[in-house]
Amino acid sequence: MSRAYLDWNATAPLRPEARAAMLAAMDVSGNPSSVHGEGRAARAIVERARAQVAQAFGASAGDIVFTSGATEAAALAMRGRNLAVAEIEHDCVLAWGDPVLSCDGNGLVGVPDPANSALQLANSETGILQTLPDGLAVSDFVQGFGKVALAFDWTGVDMGILSAHKIGGPKGVGALVLRPGIDLAADIRGGGQEAGRRGGTENVIGIAGFGAAAEAAMRDLNDGLWQKVAETRDALEDRLADEAPGVVSFGRDVARLPNTACFAVPGWKAETQVMQMDLAGFAISAGSACSSGKLRASRVLRAMGADAAIAASAIRVSLGPTTSRDDIMRFADAWLAQYQKFRARAA
Amino acid sequence: MSRAYLDWNATAPLRPEARAAMLAAMDVSGNPSSVHGEGRAARAIVERARAQVAQAFGASAGDIVFTSGATEAAALAMRGRNLAVAEIEHDCVLAWGDPVLSCDGNGLVGVPDPANSALQLANSETGILQTLPDGLAVSDFVQGFGKVALAFDWTGVDMGILSAHKIGGPKGVGALVLRPGIDLAADIRGGGQEAGRRGGTENVIGIAGFGAAAEAAMRDLNDGLWQKVAETRDALEDRLADEAPGVVSFGRDVARLPNTACFAVPGWKAETQVMQMDLAGFAISAGSACSSGKLRASRVLRAMGADAAIAASAIRVSLGPTTSRDDIMRFADAWLAQYQKFRARAA
Repeated sequence: MSRAYLDWNATAPLRPEARAAMLAAMDVSGNPSSVHGEGRAARAIVERARAQVAQAFGASAGDIVFTSGATEAAALAMRGRNLAVAEIEHDCVLAWGDPVLSCDGNGLVGVPDPANSALQLANSETGILQTLPDGLAVSDFVQGFGKVALAFDWTGVDMGILSAHKIGGPKGVGALVLRPGIDLAADIRGGGQEAGRRGGTENVIGIAGFGAAAEAAMRDLNDGLWQKVAETRDALEDRLADEAPGVVSFGRDVARLPNTACFAVPGWKAETQVMQMDLAGFAISAGSACSSGKLRASRVLRAMGADAAIAASAIRVSLGPTTSRDDIMRFADAWLAQYQKFRARAA
Repeated sequence: MSRAYLDWNATAPLRPEARAAMLAAMDVSGNPSSVHGEGRAARAIVERARAQVAQAFGASAGDIVFTSGATEAAALAMRGRNLAVAEIEHDCVLAWGDPVLSCDGNGLVGVPDPANSALQLANSETGILQTLPDGLAVSDFVQGFGKVALAFDWTGVDMGILSAHKIGGPKGVGALVLRPGIDLAADIRGGGQEAGRRGGTENVIGIAGFGAAAEAAMRDLNDGLWQKVAETRDALEDRLADEAPGVVSFGRDVARLPNTACFAVPGWKAETQVMQMDLAGFAISAGSACSSGKLRASRVLRAMGADAAIAASAIRVSLGPTTSRDDIMRFADAWLAQYQKFRARAA
């Protein structure tokens, strides 16, 4: 029986469009900084991808700074600024922020001073969406980009963080996107690439994949594919609520991503569930992938007021456009079978 | 007539082994930080590549920190340390260093305090090789790795900088390699990847290509391919010396890379030569690719004592294992034809 990949918020499978663009870029041998024909061909690949990402994100191409991923983009945006953040932010944002913003039981964060704060658009564990205040200094758009309609230049945010691999591009590529008129000094220096904002020879193959993935992601969004994903996710949650009365679900009462289900059964450790489901053929996660090796209680759920027993037993099932209803129902069968065993042991 | 790519020091064409490894990695959908099967498969790709790079570079796998390239590796090694450097260093090293080390007319640098200095192994423009002093803090091995025999753990250098795309891997991947026992704090934070030394989801596809390229590069080096390259390069230089008596060559009297020819005809601007050769079907460069857009006199040659007229007219022809004798002799024909025209105009 084939495996079902239900961990799209950790990373999405590479889209065929991204693969094709990367293969084409492999044949271009030049350095984008070289002035000869081979160099100009490489430059054209980078600039085409920049236009694709800009178009998909609703930004200007000249304001896209390609990076090695969201983590580098966060460092570029936040190093030395001590911006106010909430504990629900991703590690790469939290690393540079002052965690003074609080979060209510629904996962929503109040931002009294947007110009000196960072706030994510969507949470990777719960999928909960924030309303971004006008004039916000930095926002992590990684989980929301491609899944919900948005136009960066209309958000009133100064700097937005993107990652390619969450939308079906390759891992190791991302961008920091600037509001028109905003500039910044390079954090990785030398060479003058990216209009002096980020030195280093460009990841031409990866950037080509990012551009193609962004274009394809926008097409999927416009075609309504994520509404179907939401229906599938809702069907899973409804079935769990019916058949597993002990389950606690997060985010069902607020706006959230269409693909994310986060739920807990107090006392049934998240890492146990992840391993049992892996053996049964389903890839899911406990918390975000980056910290999943550590297998600790979810910092995000703790910040929302969940007690330690719940936070340590929460799992995330995250779907994508190619996840079938059958995949999800097979997952529900497997999870419910283990749930009954857990209940029997706990009784 | 097919073009000849003679700008390998700017970037090398992707090796078939790297392409194959990247294609295989495209099929692995997991995040290396995820604990499920898909995540472990991605982790295995990264760790296999780490072992390949370690083996090729003569280092321990646990001491390889993958980065988005040499520029990021230089920032990670050098930020905030104000290490002494010479003006001949690459921009990405010079950006963080204190340029107090001097260089003689042969391009050789004396290092009175190795523990607080950085020195490149090979210069990208001239190919000139340095003798690295024991206890050196940082060395840029980018141009030497794969072209000359070396074992990092025997060099006595604390931190070594590598780039994948100069050895036929993809652009946008590199490494900082640490001497056993050396550690460092992350510069890009969050997630805890690379043993806490560099956060961010790994560029799995690119890293796979780097590993395969490193293995293939070592095979080529061991098979003596670069000796043949040196013979071809020497044949070019001999012919230019015979047929273009006004040419000034750099580095012929000292140890240097086997593939690099750097020469000038005073008064014949380098950018003019690059454009003429591009039109004739040959990709060469003036200075390093990173700064070639700026078309200024070579900082490297100026530091070696060359006067401004020579430094502004120096070009670099850099070869690779697949460069044929015919490519080079066709280049010599084309360049000499333009040289005669220049001489006629100048007369």
